Amino acid sequence: MRAVDVIRKKRDGGALEPNEIAWLVDAYTRGEVADYQMSAFAMAVVWRGMSMDETVALTRAMLASGRVLDFAHVPGVKVDKHSTGGVGDKISLPLVGAVAACGVKVPMMSGRGLGHTGGTLDKLESIPGFRVDLSLEEFERVLTDVGCAMIGQTADICPADKKLYALRDVTATVESIPLIAASIMSKKMAEGIDALVLDVKVGRGAFMKTRDDAEKLARTMVAIGRGFGKKVVAYLTDMSEPIGSAVGNALEAKESIQAFAGAKFTRSDLRELVVVLGGEMLRLAGAGGPDDIARVLDNGEARKKFRQLVVAQGGDGTAVDGAPVFAKAARMVRVNAEADGKVKAVDAEAIGRAAMLLGAGRRMTTDKIDPTVGITGVPLVGTVVRPGRAIALLHVNDESNLAEAEGMVKGAIEIAADPSIAFATTRILGRIEG
Amino acid sequence: MRAVDVIRKKRDGGALEPNEIAWLVDAYTRGEVADYQMSAFAMAVVWRGMSMDETVALTRAMLASGRVLDFAHVPGVKVDKHSTGGVGDKISLPLVGAVAACGVKVPMMSGRGLGHTGGTLDKLESIPGFRVDLSLEEFERVLTDVGCAMIGQTADICPADKKLYALRDVTATVESIPLIAASIMSKKMAEGIDALVLDVKVGRGAFMKTRDDAEKLARTMVAIGRGFGKKVVAYLTDMSEPIGSAVGNALEAKESIQAFAGAKFTRSDLRELVVVLGGEMLRLAGAGGPDDIARVLDNGEARKKFRQLVVAQGGDGTAVDGAPVFAKAARMVRVNAEADGKVKAVDAEAIGRAAMLLGAGRRMTTDKIDPTVGITGVPLVGTVVRPGRAIALLHVNDESNLAEAEGMVKGAIEIAADPSIAFATTRILGRIEG
Repeated sequence: MRAVDVIRKKRDGGALEPNEIAWLVDAYTRGEVADYQMSAFAMAVVWRGMSMDETVALTRAMLASGRVLDFAHVPGVKVDKHSTGGVGDKISLPLVGAVAACGVKVPMMSGRGLGHTGGTLDKLESIPGFRVDLSLEEFERVLTDVGCAMIGQTADICPADKKLYALRDVTATVESIPLIAASIMSKKMAEGIDALVLDVKVGRGAFMKTRDDAEKLARTMVAIGRGFGKKVVAYLTDMSEPIGSAVGNALEAKESIQAFAGAKFTRSDLRELVVVLGGEMLRLAGAGGPDDIARVLDNGEARKKFRQLVVAQGGDGTAVDGAPVFAKAARMVRVNAEADGKVKAVDAEAIGRAAMLLGAGRRMTTDKIDPTVGITGVPLVGTVVRPGRAIALLHVNDESNLAEAEGMVKGAIEIAADPSIAFATTRILGRIEG
Repeated sequence: MRAVDVIRKKRDGGALEPNEIAWLVDAYTRGEVADYQMSAFAMAVVWRGMSMDETVALTRAMLASGRVLDFAHVPGVKVDKHSTGGVGDKISLPLVGAVAACGVKVPMMSGRGLGHTGGTLDKLESIPGFRVDLSLEEFERVLTDVGCAMIGQTADICPADKKLYALRDVTATVESIPLIAASIMSKKMAEGIDALVLDVKVGRGAFMKTRDDAEKLARTMVAIGRGFGKKVVAYLTDMSEPIGSAVGNALEAKESIQAFAGAKFTRSDLRELVVVLGGEMLRLAGAGGPDDIARVLDNGEARKKFRQLVVAQGGDGTAVDGAPVFAKAARMVRVNAEADGKVKAVDAEAIGRAAMLLGAGRRMTTDKIDPTVGITGVPLVGTVVRPGRAIALLHVNDESNLAEAEGMVKGAIEIAADPSIAFATTRILGRIEG
């Protein structure tokens, strides 16, 4: 087989056979198909798309490029959750604790933040001592002993996806639903899970800006899951305003731990996502539903479970008890409202970018982040504001981008004198199952 | 500027600014834009196309990547001819001699054969001693002294095009009219010519299979020429059956030299192309027309001029007098007709591929060719055939692909018992000027 023929077939709108896709991905992983051929192929896929069969074949080929975990010998149903990335999305921390507290195993593999979106690994690492780089043997031991474990992708899982993703990033070939879906699902199908809940974010702060695109991506991923014989349910959730009030790694970790204090102490949008998505994980495992998640969040069992996980992964357990162990930024700068009224919109992407400017995020994957910096007190749409009262608090170390970040936050929070503006009743926009 | 942004703009259907194209090509030539970015860009161009302004900018950028010749100090009008590539196309040899004999300077830079199509350089090199690798100083000296000179592209002309063309070849991004047009015209605009005649071939043996595509390519190249202030005329010519009766390098060189013997000894299709395209070159130079070409072919002046060129470039001048100095293949194999009737079609591409199988052509640019092998006696459509009479003669050294080549030639020559089949009256399908 020759790469140029496979590229040409896709370029001309043809449907590739599974063996053609398998050959291409395998040869690419081994370095026999060059980057310049794979990038031309990726552009042809951006142009022509891929059928469901092709997308499943691509997922399978990327999965086959590396190690595939098998936790069949670990007792219990294994379920994971994956989000397509948002701003302020710290729900994985309470969710993992709550789901595991209900007896469902959660072997979660997460990513790092990039651009305006945050990553679970960065948030976990802000807990003093917490190690996300467990070996797969340690991962399995923590999963078996505690019932949940949270690590990053290891190098031997889906190396083809790693290589292809880095290439797409610099060749303007990221924006393709089959390529995105295969990238996500190949990694998730390597995790040795029985079921998966997908959180496909929609809106200004999300990768998918329109409901239509988000729904296509969700349907594609659910179909891939079915192709692998796994139970997969996708939720479309609103990402026009940030989740919770904090953006930035330690700040989000602290806010997420607050969720273990029960409904009274958790911002409603954060709580809803944990309960609904965690509830769906239980449902897929045949082990309960949203009410069970709410119960263990309120009765302390979720906190206890998450504390066990933190300790098992080398972290300071007192962080989960609310002890002031998180590192803090050097100073805090208030951003004040300049008008009377209600918050009409909070541009999640702009808030994410402002946090990145302060050092909480990465422009490029090789950038270092500052876990302490970020933004707190971000209001929900519908919040009443008064001139001179804070609408956000910047946590700052390096002040070189402070003025720009401040302006960006101010610009992101739109205020209007319209009494009809109301709090959103829900962030859940839809549910898609196979 | 970042390559990924330029690629994205083209991917999304935007029109690039000249400075964006200039930057991309320059950075690519210097190795700052990677092959994998350029191939994704090329695929985006295959997809989205390019406006005329963009195509001219691309041509200009590739031209600017290397040396641009200037023959202003060489007296006389300088005109070249370029063909998009065909089977049996040996017209450059008599054409250069004839045009120069009429007092117009011809500084011709040609290419080598690839795939089923032949190249002028390979044909010239079958003349014992002939050197196509003159330095640019030697090129200019021969041009000044003789009035014409024929060499290959030197490495310092359009290096960006060389790099990009090699990349397109392995990434299925060859088939794009703006990319093809810019590739051809950047090299031609570097030649220091005043005018150019383009021979855009159409049909089974040509790169452009349809008249519509050929016309688009021709119009694009003529418009680029106008953008550079050069007189450019394009002809669309039929390439469904081979030109002349010989395919293979020495065999074609011999047939082309036969054209200097006048109309009576030259196959009509070959003669027509030399007269019409050469005549147009004279017309663009204000130095005559087709009748002048016919005259110098018939009165020996064209032969004399071409002989001077051969000698000036180190070749054996007696080859042009008809001396048997060309190397010959070890044996000849007849292909006989199996039916009574007339030749209904000769598939030029299949004939070209059969010649390649015998060793006359290259699968890849790095392949070596055998100058002696090929096919002679290829009939014109309309020729009467009888069973047991030869319809082609294979000239063979290495017999390993002989059976396959034989079958291919047999299959390429379609015979029908239809008395209404006639010889083509002309190969000229159209003429396009700025």
